[in-house]
Amino acid sequence: MPSTSAKPSLYTCLSPALLHLYDVSSSIVVIIDVLRATSTIATALHNGAKAIVPVDSVADCIRIGKQIDAITAGERDGQVAEGLQYGNSPFEYPESFVKGKTLVLTTTNGTKLLHMALEKGAQEIITGSFPNLSAVCTHLIKRGKNVILGCAAWKDRINIEDSLFAGAVIDQVRDHFDIQCDSSQIASTLFQNGKDDLYEFMKKHNASHYHRLNNYGLEKDIRYCLSADSTNVLPLYTGGKLVSTVI
Amino acid sequence: MPSTSAKPSLYTCLSPALLHLYDVSSSIVVIIDVLRATSTIATALHNGAKAIVPVDSVADCIRIGKQIDAITAGERDGQVAEGLQYGNSPFEYPESFVKGKTLVLTTTNGTKLLHMALEKGAQEIITGSFPNLSAVCTHLIKRGKNVILGCAAWKDRINIEDSLFAGAVIDQVRDHFDIQCDSSQIASTLFQNGKDDLYEFMKKHNASHYHRLNNYGLEKDIRYCLSADSTNVLPLYTGGKLVSTVI
Repeated sequence: MPSTSAKPSLYTCLSPALLHLYDVSSSIVVIIDVLRATSTIATALHNGAKAIVPVDSVADCIRIGKQIDAITAGERDGQVAEGLQYGNSPFEYPESFVKGKTLVLTTTNGTKLLHMALEKGAQEIITGSFPNLSAVCTHLIKRGKNVILGCAAWKDRINIEDSLFAGAVIDQVRDHFDIQCDSSQIASTLFQNGKDDLYEFMKKHNASHYHRLNNYGLEKDIRYCLSADSTNVLPLYTGGKLVSTVI
Repeated sequence: MPSTSAKPSLYTCLSPALLHLYDVSSSIVVIIDVLRATSTIATALHNGAKAIVPVDSVADCIRIGKQIDAITAGERDGQVAEGLQYGNSPFEYPESFVKGKTLVLTTTNGTKLLHMALEKGAQEIITGSFPNLSAVCTHLIKRGKNVILGCAAWKDRINIEDSLFAGAVIDQVRDHFDIQCDSSQIASTLFQNGKDDLYEFMKKHNASHYHRLNNYGLEKDIRYCLSADSTNVLPLYTGGKLVSTVI
C-alpha cells in the first residue's frame, strides 16, 4: 500500500512531441504557451471574458465563431490568421472590449497541446503563464494531485520561455511535490538564471521566439508576457471551454 | 546565392523523440550518451580496441559477436545484459584487455540513436562524451559542416548529463557556428551552471541517472564519465563500425 504521506509527482514535458512519455491520465496538465496564447487567455478572462473556446484550425474557429456569435481570434506563425478578426496579443483584449464575451481562439502550439492532453484523458487541464503564475501555483498546491507542466514549445521544438515558466512554477511549488524528473531540474536551473530579468535573459540567449516577435515590433507584448501576476485568474478547461475559476 | 562567409549551423536535439525536427541528412551528428555508452566507446578505442560495432538488440550482439569472434558487451537498464560477456563500464576495457580487439556493443539509448541518425542519412556520425570532449570540438571546428548534437537521453526522456555535454561542446565551438536554437541555449546555460563541478551538479539536481547508477555503486564510473579529456580519440562511424580517427 503506498504511503499516505507520499507527495504527488511533478513532471515537466518540454515539448508536445514528448507528451506520450508521461502519465497524462493520472495528472493535472498545465498548458504553457507563454508567447502568447496562455498569457492572452489569462488576460482576457481577467478582463471579464465569459469563456474561451480553444480550437485547432482556422476553419473551425470561423465556423464555431459564427455558430455561437463569438469573437474569432488566433494566429499562425505569430500573426493574425487570415479570416479571423483578432490576433494573439493580450493587449487586444481590454475589459472595455472583452467583458461578457466569448472568444474562439486558435494558436500554433498551445491549442494543439491542450487537445492532446484532452485526448489522453488528463484529469484536469488548466493554462499557465507568467501573468497568472501565482494563481496556478496556489491551485496546484491546494489540489495536491500529480502534475505535468506541459510546454507548448514551437512546432515541437523546445523553447526558452515555456521552459522558464515551468521553472518558475517549480520554484514556488517544489516543497509540495516529489520531483524526479531531469526536465524539471533543467527548467528550474534555467529559471534561477533568468529570474532577475526574464526579458534580458531571453534577449541575451537569443531566444528564437523573442526574435520572431521582436521583428514584428512586439516588445511590449513580450515584456508583458514575462511579467508575473498581473492577472489572478485560473483558466480551467471544462465543457469545451476555458473559464475563470475561483481559487 | 548564400554568402560564402556564412557559418554552419549547430542544433541540439535533447531527445531521440525530437530527431525528426532536425535536418539530419545535411549534418554531422554527434551521438551523446554520457552515462555510459559513448564514454566507454571513447575509452575502449583510446585503449587500443580495433573497432566497436554498435547493435540494437542483445540477440544481434550475441549473433554478431560469434560471427566475427568479438567481445560481446552491453547493458539494459544500466546493468550487464543477460547473455553478454561484459557491461557498459569504461573500467572494463583497459588496454591489457581490449587492445586489438573488436567489441560488439548494445546499450539502452546510445546505439538506438546512432541507428536513427544512420537511417535518416546523416552526413557523418561521431560519438561524444566528456572523456573525448576536446577531440570532438576540434573535429567539428575543422570540418566546418552543420552539426546536430544528439542526446541519447533515457528512453526518450531528456537527461541532465547529455544536455551538460551538449553545453560543454557549445562552450568550446560557439564562435564557429550559427546557433539559432533554444535547446542549445538551454544546454549551454546548464553547463555554465554546472561546469565547476559536474558531479556535484548532478548530485544536487537529483539527476535521475545519477541515482540509478549510484544505487549500483558506480560513483567511480560517474566521476570518470564527467571528467574531460582523458581520451583524445574521435570515434567515427564507418562501414558499420566505430573506429578511432586521427583528428
